[in-house]
Amino acid sequence: MISNRFDIEKILSGSRVSIARAISMIENEHPLSADFLRLIYKYTGNAYRIGITGPPGAGKSTITNKLAKHYRGLGKRVGIIAVDPTSPFTGGALLGDRVRMTDVELDEGVFIRSMASRGSLGGLSKKAKEAADILDASGCEIILLETVGVGQSELDIARAADTTVVVLVPESGDSIQAMKAGLMEIADFFVLNKADRAGAEQAVMSIQMVLNFKAKQQGWNPDVLKTTASEGRGVAEVADKISEHQSYLISSKQLELKRRTRIIERIRELVGEKLHFDFWNEERDRLLTEKMSDLDSLQTTPFDIVDYLLKNYKR
Amino acid sequence: MISNRFDIEKILSGSRVSIARAISMIENEHPLSADFLRLIYKYTGNAYRIGITGPPGAGKSTITNKLAKHYRGLGKRVGIIAVDPTSPFTGGALLGDRVRMTDVELDEGVFIRSMASRGSLGGLSKKAKEAADILDASGCEIILLETVGVGQSELDIARAADTTVVVLVPESGDSIQAMKAGLMEIADFFVLNKADRAGAEQAVMSIQMVLNFKAKQQGWNPDVLKTTASEGRGVAEVADKISEHQSYLISSKQLELKRRTRIIERIRELVGEKLHFDFWNEERDRLLTEKMSDLDSLQTTPFDIVDYLLKNYKR
Repeated sequence: MISNRFDIEKILSGSRVSIARAISMIENEHPLSADFLRLIYKYTGNAYRIGITGPPGAGKSTITNKLAKHYRGLGKRVGIIAVDPTSPFTGGALLGDRVRMTDVELDEGVFIRSMASRGSLGGLSKKAKEAADILDASGCEIILLETVGVGQSELDIARAADTTVVVLVPESGDSIQAMKAGLMEIADFFVLNKADRAGAEQAVMSIQMVLNFKAKQQGWNPDVLKTTASEGRGVAEVADKISEHQSYLISSKQLELKRRTRIIERIRELVGEKLHFDFWNEERDRLLTEKMSDLDSLQTTPFDIVDYLLKNYKR
Repeated sequence: MISNRFDIEKILSGSRVSIARAISMIENEHPLSADFLRLIYKYTGNAYRIGITGPPGAGKSTITNKLAKHYRGLGKRVGIIAVDPTSPFTGGALLGDRVRMTDVELDEGVFIRSMASRGSLGGLSKKAKEAADILDASGCEIILLETVGVGQSELDIARAADTTVVVLVPESGDSIQAMKAGLMEIADFFVLNKADRAGAEQAVMSIQMVLNFKAKQQGWNPDVLKTTASEGRGVAEVADKISEHQSYLISSKQLELKRRTRIIERIRELVGEKLHFDFWNEERDRLLTEKMSDLDSLQTTPFDIVDYLLKNYKR
């Protein structure tokens, strides 16, 4: 226990209140966050992390909800992190998620958390990954990371998953065309949701066609499954495909490699943060402000200011 | 001239080949990029930068195209940077942009460039802003920055504009609901495109409603305009609204403040990069690899590795 408020024992035993509080601590960048994450580290690495991504309106929340229900049926504890690029002042999407998670939200074996960007650029993907660590330490065996997959930071979250599922729908037409390009790279497999609608077969064919363009690789090649998630149809097959991918990653030693790479990235991120924090003290802020007036008179450039600030920096 | 290939004189005189080459230099992270940007700095600051953002399929490219045509009619030189989170292996969206820019693409007074993320996370928004600096130095009076506005890095690009226009469409329904939240924060005003379609009035009303939730501020309050960009309808009004916003920013001294903040952010970004570059030498890479094996045997945590690496770092 590092403080009364953040009780590690209680998190390890799965206390919902303690988990919620710990995630809030991460979200609010509480000064104890780093120490806390350091202490829980050795309890992580047991959960299997599944990224669910795709364009808005594809039914990601519904699929996440039904997958959670499926895993509950197998007796597994499930954590859900829904990441939403929502503004602080509407909060609309958050409510939306809650409504669509009705199948599992009263289930004690499922922990659901929505995370929004709250106006500050960046940082969200880091916080979402740290929240996943907390759920991992708390004993969740499955962690579902749901994100709207268009921007870089959302792709980043999806990349933090062991298996990434990209959800598309038939009718999105050319908007899908534009987006699936970025999504193609990260998909371990695709799900064509709302497969009961017109154009489903054609959509599956066109995704398959793009996949065929990509050179076949040894080992794993992405596939397309069909679901009608609102009725639960195809969801068990999605879970089976996830298991299949997990087995592949384990037997090929790629899971190990993937997680190792993820830790190295994390370390580099943390080092970058600390270097930044050490550098930008009051003195350096003052020097920057001073130099900004030379900029107004065109006596310098931003690049020269950077050199100036760094030249006098000894760590 | 810093080299034969990157001739600053030619860029200042607006040579299309030289501009294209300079932007490629930025995209490919050529070692001379930094020196080049330093040299052109004093020629920047004259262009007015307009961000056009919104969900996929809203008609951003069409509006960008028509706005460019409008500004050409006023005799202004125009630069367009279309940012697309596209994968390197499909390249589909790039072609799409070209097709939709037919009104201006043969015009010598318009420079169009598509930029894609090419697989590497991050860096795109920085490169897009630097490309805008090149266009600025080359004499473009108007720079249109078109991005798919959902993810953080795309919002970041929009924030680099003096005026940001968010484009929405009537039929996007709840997908729009989910997205406009994030877009609300950055919009200087909204455009409801495809306003000839069913549900346009209702969509305008619902955007207006969300805007009304936001407390009215002194000075500028976002508004909603209607366009049918494919037929050019409403585009002149969009240009007028941009001028109105520009006048507001100038008279309230906010343009100055906005640009100053942008330069400070740029300096912080560059300092961060240099600190990172100085830190991660061969020696430190080797230390990290060494420590990773202690991690496998649970003798350490990523956080302890970070401390270890920084403890021995003297700059």
